[in-house]
Amino acid sequence: MPNLAVALDLGGTQIRGALVDEAGAILARQVRRTPAREGADAVVAALAQVSRDAAAAAGTRPVVGIGLSAPGPLDAEKGIALATPTIAGFTDFPLARNLEAAAGLPVALENDGIAAAIGEWRFGAGRGKSHMVYVTVSTGIGGGAVVDGHVLRGRKGMATHIGHMTVMHGGELCVCGNHGCFEAYASGTAFLARARRLSMHRPDSALSGLNEALTGPEVFAAARDGDELACELVAEEATMLGLGFANLLHLYSPELIVVGGGMSSEFNALEAGILRAMRGAALAPFRDVPVVTAALGDNSGLSGAGAIAYQAFGTNGTRR
Amino acid sequence: MPNLAVALDLGGTQIRGALVDEAGAILARQVRRTPAREGADAVVAALAQVSRDAAAAAGTRPVVGIGLSAPGPLDAEKGIALATPTIAGFTDFPLARNLEAAAGLPVALENDGIAAAIGEWRFGAGRGKSHMVYVTVSTGIGGGAVVDGHVLRGRKGMATHIGHMTVMHGGELCVCGNHGCFEAYASGTAFLARARRLSMHRPDSALSGLNEALTGPEVFAAARDGDELACELVAEEATMLGLGFANLLHLYSPELIVVGGGMSSEFNALEAGILRAMRGAALAPFRDVPVVTAALGDNSGLSGAGAIAYQAFGTNGTRR
Repeated sequence: MPNLAVALDLGGTQIRGALVDEAGAILARQVRRTPAREGADAVVAALAQVSRDAAAAAGTRPVVGIGLSAPGPLDAEKGIALATPTIAGFTDFPLARNLEAAAGLPVALENDGIAAAIGEWRFGAGRGKSHMVYVTVSTGIGGGAVVDGHVLRGRKGMATHIGHMTVMHGGELCVCGNHGCFEAYASGTAFLARARRLSMHRPDSALSGLNEALTGPEVFAAARDGDELACELVAEEATMLGLGFANLLHLYSPELIVVGGGMSSEFNALEAGILRAMRGAALAPFRDVPVVTAALGDNSGLSGAGAIAYQAFGTNGTRR
Repeated sequence: MPNLAVALDLGGTQIRGALVDEAGAILARQVRRTPAREGADAVVAALAQVSRDAAAAAGTRPVVGIGLSAPGPLDAEKGIALATPTIAGFTDFPLARNLEAAAGLPVALENDGIAAAIGEWRFGAGRGKSHMVYVTVSTGIGGGAVVDGHVLRGRKGMATHIGHMTVMHGGELCVCGNHGCFEAYASGTAFLARARRLSMHRPDSALSGLNEALTGPEVFAAARDGDELACELVAEEATMLGLGFANLLHLYSPELIVVGGGMSSEFNALEAGILRAMRGAALAPFRDVPVVTAALGDNSGLSGAGAIAYQAFGTNGTRR
């Protein structure tokens, strides 16, 4: 009987869990709230519960172990959350070891950007490619890269923290404390902050007066209705994404860039601007690289986490 | 009798050639001027002559082939110079095939930044590391990266064009036509342009009045003598290098950064400022990564080109 892996995708607001088979199919999917403010033990207990529920759904099929996607920075090699800003207590916290004890299964930890990149590479938009970059654009910006058929991990598995490359020296303050990060210009958070700030000075705009209640989808909807400010905001978002993507072309030389995360649901509105900015900033031989949206949507990370479990524990539960 | 490889390092002003053994030792080294303005055929003829001289010096020892380091962007997989700005006629030019015909040996082409990175990784400052980034800072900025024990090549072998990542959106014009490239802020060319520009407005500085005659070593010498403008220029150079290096930490997660090229000869004056800026811009878990100078000096590229020839042609002349 073919094996199954438990896949867990830990985010700042939600824990997604599932069983994943070796072909990337997702079974017994569940979602629950992350107890992000209740401390590391509460988060581990919640992860263990999701894991047990998933394992129970496997019935008599053997479970090889847990693949866990989690927000960084983390030391994936040692299984340690180093300094996760969105979860209380995730500072130098031995996440993999604690979850192993609580769930009774071996755990392979991976940065969430890399896990989602693996999902898209193995089962999604990047299938069959030797070189691809995955970028997730939501609250923050993260990602993963496949180069020469290898998933880049680097020292402590910390490669591809692409949200924190500086694209504007001395620019906007980022949550990380640095100024001018890609994330500080092109994340969903940055997009919304810019919209709220500018809308205060543009009484002619449909966005005016919404202030803190303004949402991203409202800005895109207003842009579709021709609102001038909304169109400017969408154009600026596309430009900053394209600029960052051009950097990724020069640094990794992918065959394609795959965009996931919440912002990718508005890709139709952003695509032309992204390509214009990306090609404008790229050396000529990089300009023909396509940008596409993730094929697995919300499940890139889960599918990737499953693949990581199989890679780590094989099909008979052996540690790598 | 052990084999030898012909290593060629083509630059915009010089061709370096040598025999390299499998341990990276450099024999029969020679240097000649690059006929950069005389067209692609003249450059190929010069390379072939250097290759023949080197092969002749091998005596009866077998020569496996030629490893050729050349400035990009080039399609290393197909052996084509795509758009080399410093050499006339190097536009979509089948460099490897032409040199094979002229020199009578198989040719493996590699981007010069990647070739030098391989040299430092195999035989120099990065020996034994699984993850390292090599950066050459001279007229321009180039480099190569080793991640998870693999040299990054990417699509067309064009990875690690690190000089053309944007670090200042809308900033200084780069030779590539983009604004705000790392190279436009931190290359030797950018350093000197800034020095010449600012010295015109600072009659109190020892650099004042030198204008176009001003050289990089003079700026560093004036800084050692305490000249205020010179100290500012050195500090700014260090800051921009450190900023770019922080990006490389986030993108590749190396164990160390190796700096080569002309600017690295002034590393003592730059080191403190580089580390301050790099650590200031980096997420906490990246801040302990050291920055060192290349161990092989001018020979990083030659040693790397030799290693590339062995990798491509093995020890008995077989194409990879």
